[in-house]
Amino acid sequence: MALLNEYFLDLPTENLFSDVVKKINAFKIMRPNIRLTDMGIHDTDTSLPPSVVEAMHRAVADMSNHSTFSRNESEQGYEFLRDVIIKNDFNPRGIHLIPNEIFISNGVKSEIGNIGDVLRGDNTIGVMDPIYPIYIENNVISGRAGIFEGGRWSNVCYMSCNEANGFTPMPPEYPIDIVYLCSPNNPCGAAYSKGQLKKWVDYALKNNTLILFDASYEAYIQSPDIPHSIYEIRGAKKVAIELRCFSRTAGFSDLRCGYTVIPKELTIQTLDGRRVQMNALWSRRQNIRFGGVSYVTQCAAAATYSEAGKEQLRQAREYHMENARLMRRDLANLGVKVYGGEHVPYLWMKIPPNTSSWEFFEMLLYCANVICTPGSVFGPGGEGFVRLKALANRENCENAITRLKDCLK
Amino acid sequence: MALLNEYFLDLPTENLFSDVVKKINAFKIMRPNIRLTDMGIHDTDTSLPPSVVEAMHRAVADMSNHSTFSRNESEQGYEFLRDVIIKNDFNPRGIHLIPNEIFISNGVKSEIGNIGDVLRGDNTIGVMDPIYPIYIENNVISGRAGIFEGGRWSNVCYMSCNEANGFTPMPPEYPIDIVYLCSPNNPCGAAYSKGQLKKWVDYALKNNTLILFDASYEAYIQSPDIPHSIYEIRGAKKVAIELRCFSRTAGFSDLRCGYTVIPKELTIQTLDGRRVQMNALWSRRQNIRFGGVSYVTQCAAAATYSEAGKEQLRQAREYHMENARLMRRDLANLGVKVYGGEHVPYLWMKIPPNTSSWEFFEMLLYCANVICTPGSVFGPGGEGFVRLKALANRENCENAITRLKDCLK
Repeated sequence: MALLNEYFLDLPTENLFSDVVKKINAFKIMRPNIRLTDMGIHDTDTSLPPSVVEAMHRAVADMSNHSTFSRNESEQGYEFLRDVIIKNDFNPRGIHLIPNEIFISNGVKSEIGNIGDVLRGDNTIGVMDPIYPIYIENNVISGRAGIFEGGRWSNVCYMSCNEANGFTPMPPEYPIDIVYLCSPNNPCGAAYSKGQLKKWVDYALKNNTLILFDASYEAYIQSPDIPHSIYEIRGAKKVAIELRCFSRTAGFSDLRCGYTVIPKELTIQTLDGRRVQMNALWSRRQNIRFGGVSYVTQCAAAATYSEAGKEQLRQAREYHMENARLMRRDLANLGVKVYGGEHVPYLWMKIPPNTSSWEFFEMLLYCANVICTPGSVFGPGGEGFVRLKALANRENCENAITRLKDCLK
Repeated sequence: MALLNEYFLDLPTENLFSDVVKKINAFKIMRPNIRLTDMGIHDTDTSLPPSVVEAMHRAVADMSNHSTFSRNESEQGYEFLRDVIIKNDFNPRGIHLIPNEIFISNGVKSEIGNIGDVLRGDNTIGVMDPIYPIYIENNVISGRAGIFEGGRWSNVCYMSCNEANGFTPMPPEYPIDIVYLCSPNNPCGAAYSKGQLKKWVDYALKNNTLILFDASYEAYIQSPDIPHSIYEIRGAKKVAIELRCFSRTAGFSDLRCGYTVIPKELTIQTLDGRRVQMNALWSRRQNIRFGGVSYVTQCAAAATYSEAGKEQLRQAREYHMENARLMRRDLANLGVKVYGGEHVPYLWMKIPPNTSSWEFFEMLLYCANVICTPGSVFGPGGEGFVRLKALANRENCENAITRLKDCLK
């Protein structure tokens, strides 16, 4: 008799983002003539940049001709892509990696969970709070999260991102086995400084902690003092896996592409104290359970590193960060406390006390006809805030602020 | 201290296919001037059909324009693709499915392993032998395979595909929790008849067995009596998940696309005897751990169902199956016993007694300069055979047979 993995039954039956969608759909049914301004979860309003589109057309043409097309020999990804990643994202920051340390992936969402395959089910985990729910949910279905009580999983260390710590929590006094860091952080927008990140790396070196460092938003970093990669910190190669994606920086959401860095120096322990190379372990896992990423998609990703591609992406990011700047300014003028928007294209807006983020979400929906994301869908630490995206066109952003202004009066 | 999933340490450090590649590379270094004829593991020599190429160009153009492109709302895949799958692959065979029962995937390789996420680690498993090693390896890393002794995993039931049973093993006397069936089978080429498959479905209904039915090669089936889908058997929706891919039928290997059918009727048991709907469980898993398949790839897949696409694919399959027919004929004339090549584009060639499939592989490599795949890389039941692909151009196939002829004399 086939039996199911009962850890699934511990999950809430749907995620909270579905509840957001349901509430929006209910509104649309009740008020079909009202046009909503979406500052919520659908996070790309950008089309692919021209140089990426050209590269994709070329890739399709390659595939249509057997004599011009050479098959991917490895699930790890084409070497042409792994090469440009290293040359552009790491070498200029003094980080030396070899192509075998880069694994092309279908994006951070799947990869965050997949990494768990090579880790024991009883490792303790620590996650920033608030954070995207899949960080924790992937651990729930692997049995690492414990039981859900009072809005929290019993075996998860919630590392609070709050106003008091500038949304950049520091290591706890006790050891955690696996720590998920996201910097710059979505949803709060805070980014770790080098000094702060060094504390995490030192903590990991001391406690044999594995750091899973999500750098999805690194391209939006506006300050030269903020590290783009955890490997800018000495020793990080021994303790950290870095995950990146092309989705946010290149309108890539519907292409699904990212990459994972697993340095050869990174080892992980067996119960009897031996150290095993994580890179070899991961290669084996991919060999068994991953088919690789589409050639067309890998060509698209590589095009983001061409001179034209880089410039087009820079312009797109600048446009969205200007949205963020304008929204921050206007909200501050309204007397609203706003965080984020400096290193990520999202604002983290503080809501009035004694209002839940769900109530505020509904208030904005019905009063301002603006869609936001209630902070608490990102975890208990998100309560008291809502997230507004700046990944939209200028008109929508201005429109949203005008409507908010009328409603918050 | 982060600890690794030690089941990984039970795996051989590399798979046997890597050994094949190593031996070929060694040959190339020693004899750089000899041109090898590849009848081995690189299984596509076909470019994408024109209608697929056109659809991909259109899809790229869509994505370049925000006003023509609508985002994928669900990891499950675009409904336009799920619709044509149902209309073309199932309705004509009297199988009724709804779009929510179809999950677009990155292909069977990843999916075979992913399905394990929703299943307990202590289910017993049964696999056809020989079969692609990932079927078992995915269970090894999930702890279901036991220990490796004498070429076999202790907790795996090897269901032997041999000459005596026509390479179509029937259910054992005892219950197995999860059974992997692959029909038509790669590497042997045998396909289950309706009567045979009914025995498996009845066995599964009786024992609460979950059947994972890999129908990757169904498009190659040449006889009207062979079922293309397990759902042609009454009751199968209650017990079987069907996996399919576009890789073999459309030169899609480097696009990575397939789909998984999980009927709403399929339930799976909890330890305390409740039945849980597998479809809902899988939706939740995908929601947490899967980002969906690229829009361009889904458009390519949909194009294989257009009238032009179907005709182009039919011609490509016919060409390869004619290769198989010619190779079978010529090998039979040489007095070699050959199986397969009737419902899959592979031949399963019996080798002389007292020769291992590795020895025969090396003999063909050095004497005939032909690359084949040693049967034993597919499991202990593959010993005594090698696999030759017909997925090549005609000239290569004829060339291979001529060289074989000289060598086998």
